[in-house]
Amino acid sequence: MFAWFSRNWADTRKLVRRNIRHEIGDRRLSENTQKLIEALYEVLPEQSVSTAEEARLENSRDFGQLSRLPILPAAVVYAREVEEVQAVMRLASEYKVPVITRGAGTGVSGAVHVLGEAVVLNMSKMDRILQIRPEDEVAVVEPGVINHHLNEAVSEFGLMYAPDPASYKMSTIGGNIATNAGGLRCAKYGVTRESVLALDVVLADGRLISVGKNTFKGVAGYDLVALFTGSEGTLGVVVRAVVRLRYLPVDERDLALVFETLEQAVEGVQKIARARIQPAILELIDHATMQVLDDQYSTDYASAGGAMLLLRLDGYGAQREEEAVRDVFAASTVRASLQGDPGATALIEMRRTSRGDTKDDAYRTGEDVAIPKSRMVEYVHRLQQTAEKEQVHMRMISHVGDGNLHPTFFVGEDEGDEPLARLHRAVEESVRTALEMGGTITGEHGVGLIKKDWLAWEQSSDVIDLQHQIKSLLDPLNILNPGKAI
Amino acid sequence: MFAWFSRNWADTRKLVRRNIRHEIGDRRLSENTQKLIEALYEVLPEQSVSTAEEARLENSRDFGQLSRLPILPAAVVYAREVEEVQAVMRLASEYKVPVITRGAGTGVSGAVHVLGEAVVLNMSKMDRILQIRPEDEVAVVEPGVINHHLNEAVSEFGLMYAPDPASYKMSTIGGNIATNAGGLRCAKYGVTRESVLALDVVLADGRLISVGKNTFKGVAGYDLVALFTGSEGTLGVVVRAVVRLRYLPVDERDLALVFETLEQAVEGVQKIARARIQPAILELIDHATMQVLDDQYSTDYASAGGAMLLLRLDGYGAQREEEAVRDVFAASTVRASLQGDPGATALIEMRRTSRGDTKDDAYRTGEDVAIPKSRMVEYVHRLQQTAEKEQVHMRMISHVGDGNLHPTFFVGEDEGDEPLARLHRAVEESVRTALEMGGTITGEHGVGLIKKDWLAWEQSSDVIDLQHQIKSLLDPLNILNPGKAI
Repeated sequence: MFAWFSRNWADTRKLVRRNIRHEIGDRRLSENTQKLIEALYEVLPEQSVSTAEEARLENSRDFGQLSRLPILPAAVVYAREVEEVQAVMRLASEYKVPVITRGAGTGVSGAVHVLGEAVVLNMSKMDRILQIRPEDEVAVVEPGVINHHLNEAVSEFGLMYAPDPASYKMSTIGGNIATNAGGLRCAKYGVTRESVLALDVVLADGRLISVGKNTFKGVAGYDLVALFTGSEGTLGVVVRAVVRLRYLPVDERDLALVFETLEQAVEGVQKIARARIQPAILELIDHATMQVLDDQYSTDYASAGGAMLLLRLDGYGAQREEEAVRDVFAASTVRASLQGDPGATALIEMRRTSRGDTKDDAYRTGEDVAIPKSRMVEYVHRLQQTAEKEQVHMRMISHVGDGNLHPTFFVGEDEGDEPLARLHRAVEESVRTALEMGGTITGEHGVGLIKKDWLAWEQSSDVIDLQHQIKSLLDPLNILNPGKAI
Repeated sequence: MFAWFSRNWADTRKLVRRNIRHEIGDRRLSENTQKLIEALYEVLPEQSVSTAEEARLENSRDFGQLSRLPILPAAVVYAREVEEVQAVMRLASEYKVPVITRGAGTGVSGAVHVLGEAVVLNMSKMDRILQIRPEDEVAVVEPGVINHHLNEAVSEFGLMYAPDPASYKMSTIGGNIATNAGGLRCAKYGVTRESVLALDVVLADGRLISVGKNTFKGVAGYDLVALFTGSEGTLGVVVRAVVRLRYLPVDERDLALVFETLEQAVEGVQKIARARIQPAILELIDHATMQVLDDQYSTDYASAGGAMLLLRLDGYGAQREEEAVRDVFAASTVRASLQGDPGATALIEMRRTSRGDTKDDAYRTGEDVAIPKSRMVEYVHRLQQTAEKEQVHMRMISHVGDGNLHPTFFVGEDEGDEPLARLHRAVEESVRTALEMGGTITGEHGVGLIKKDWLAWEQSSDVIDLQHQIKSLLDPLNILNPGKAI
């Protein structure tokens, strides 16, 4: 149902602008939506509501590349206070108008794409860090706080907020919670869910509830924090979060290892595991991506081998772990970066913010499966076969420490017939193959819209029904980001 | 509503036996329950169903010390196959008879106490380790597998199952999941929830569903694994779990630190944190407990100081962390155990399986609050005031690494008037004080029956209602461990 395209944002804006005329300009909003907008203007501070085309355009989508273009939301609310969020939900319930809550919109699953008449609730202005309690190792934040800003603020206390999705310099904590965001450091430090202790949530009818606890441990009642975390704005609106902080490591050692073949690199991952080394970051880069890196950074990795691993070892054990890694590969042909090589660090930092994938191919889609770690080589071989069969190109980088793979499939506009259809088939086969191997359709990006049709490949109808029932319980009018996530 | 008593198990059995005559011997089971038992005998293998008094007695309660005695369950089913569990739930739904699912019954919250007509579903015979996949770092287990047995089985691969409640040598993985069990190592490795990837669950009506994923990361749909984890048998019956394994540390360093005062010991915890050292185990032992230990182990800690910390440092950083700890306290009067002191290790192992608290006081209750780490000293002072006011004794050990405190209140039978009432008041005040300080009523033991009345002290009626609605969704007939957990 949902295909992808990689036209850049400027192109998309043009398309959406054209779409505006088609989708909204030609018709009137429903009476209920008009009444809601009037009521919002009445109840909220003037600056909080916008029906300007630019605001609506900016809030019509995330970074997910759907072939179906979004339409413009009827209005955008920039909430600044909890009470404003409550007012929005109360009114939206009264007029039965869908509300799509969003942060920075850096998600890639289309979870905040606007496909029907709706109001967007933009949380990015609720960006106060309310408390940093270094001795408790927690912070209390509003949902619009940028991940990176929180890390900057807590670093002076020797602390960090561990989850680091590639978008961490732009994405908000609220958005990270909505998607249960992962990142590179979660192999060692866990995903977003492991760092969220408590949430204040505005429910669909405007009531405010507090779930979770302010302590690291706590088992009073059901785990409602985990239920809201990763629910992509379909169960409630997070307005405040208590997050756990971790210790900033006293030492960090970065290593780049170049292997002759991909198989050897994956075997290298197992060797590191067997030596009981737990890297903070462990990334696998395939040969095609090495070539892209060489082009971008004027390096020369591609000629040195067929695949590489990037490692960051941290904490008190960093030095001994680095020695242990070097010992593991001492007798092999692996080329390890020199101690303190700034190149390894540069590559890891590059990887922390991107796929090393800035080229603008005509059609491209980045995937996000996770599979059991032992099936990696087999999976890559299957991907290569699929790419060959469908005549598409493939590159892959992976959070190999936790089996989370990000293959990118791409094809030029002029390469043969029906490039989009071939791309689509290749992607679908890559996902089916992951499921065959006991994997999941999404390791960290979320279901959103893009993966919704695939959910039934992974989960039984009983499980999907159960989730819809939970959704109905919390959102009986189906106004919270309807049609997404489940 | 629920008070405590500490009569030992033998005494309790006598009381329960007397109770049998009062509660069951004198009356007939309801017609529905009789029909259910007949149907169970018909459908299940003969060995799977028991109405013998001994079996019913053994399955009437857990280690929770409620003043209200349990009654005998109408029958006990020892399930061996998933299909048997499904049959039990189908029939229980048909006849609308409550089912209390249990493992080894080592819980201390009364979660499996039988207080009304019910069948107990004992999962301890479903104790097969179905798979160990060392390269994937996961195991697949039935719920009756003993925590310790799993650890023994995976240790040959250099792996461990991290959650280690004090009952780990007796308790089952299923029971650990039902209570989201904690333990000592979770300061570093997380609680049970962080080690459970996927669950097979039999629902109230007998349907079997699979939730979660086989990979470390995965965000497809809502987090139903977390919803079932810690739900104390009220939402479904776990029949299979995929658990994440961690690396057995390559090195372990144990340290005992004796401080002059409790305040200094707690300040010591902060100093260790500020040095960014993350112990695998970090326990605080107060002076009263040191005296108990001295009596038991013929040691002489109590005269050396007012409180002690037990630390286990593990992994590649263990040695450097040990050096760092010694550096932190080099200039102070803290008495640190010598390097490789077997005494420190013995104390930690003792602490891993008990509270160092084997004395049989007439009335005793062990608490389980968690509070923000910075409030520790203040909290202990408040506890001391409370104990004094109510004329009860108090000892405390704490998982101080995550702010999870286990004060024990006790009073002799001959000590003044109404010892139980005083004990009860002291405990309630200790819990209220924890909540005042931003804590929780239960860090790791669970709500069960004992803490049910307190849940409303911690959570709003909206939040409690929401949980009841979720319960109704999954268990519309209210036959899954009714009246517990929420």
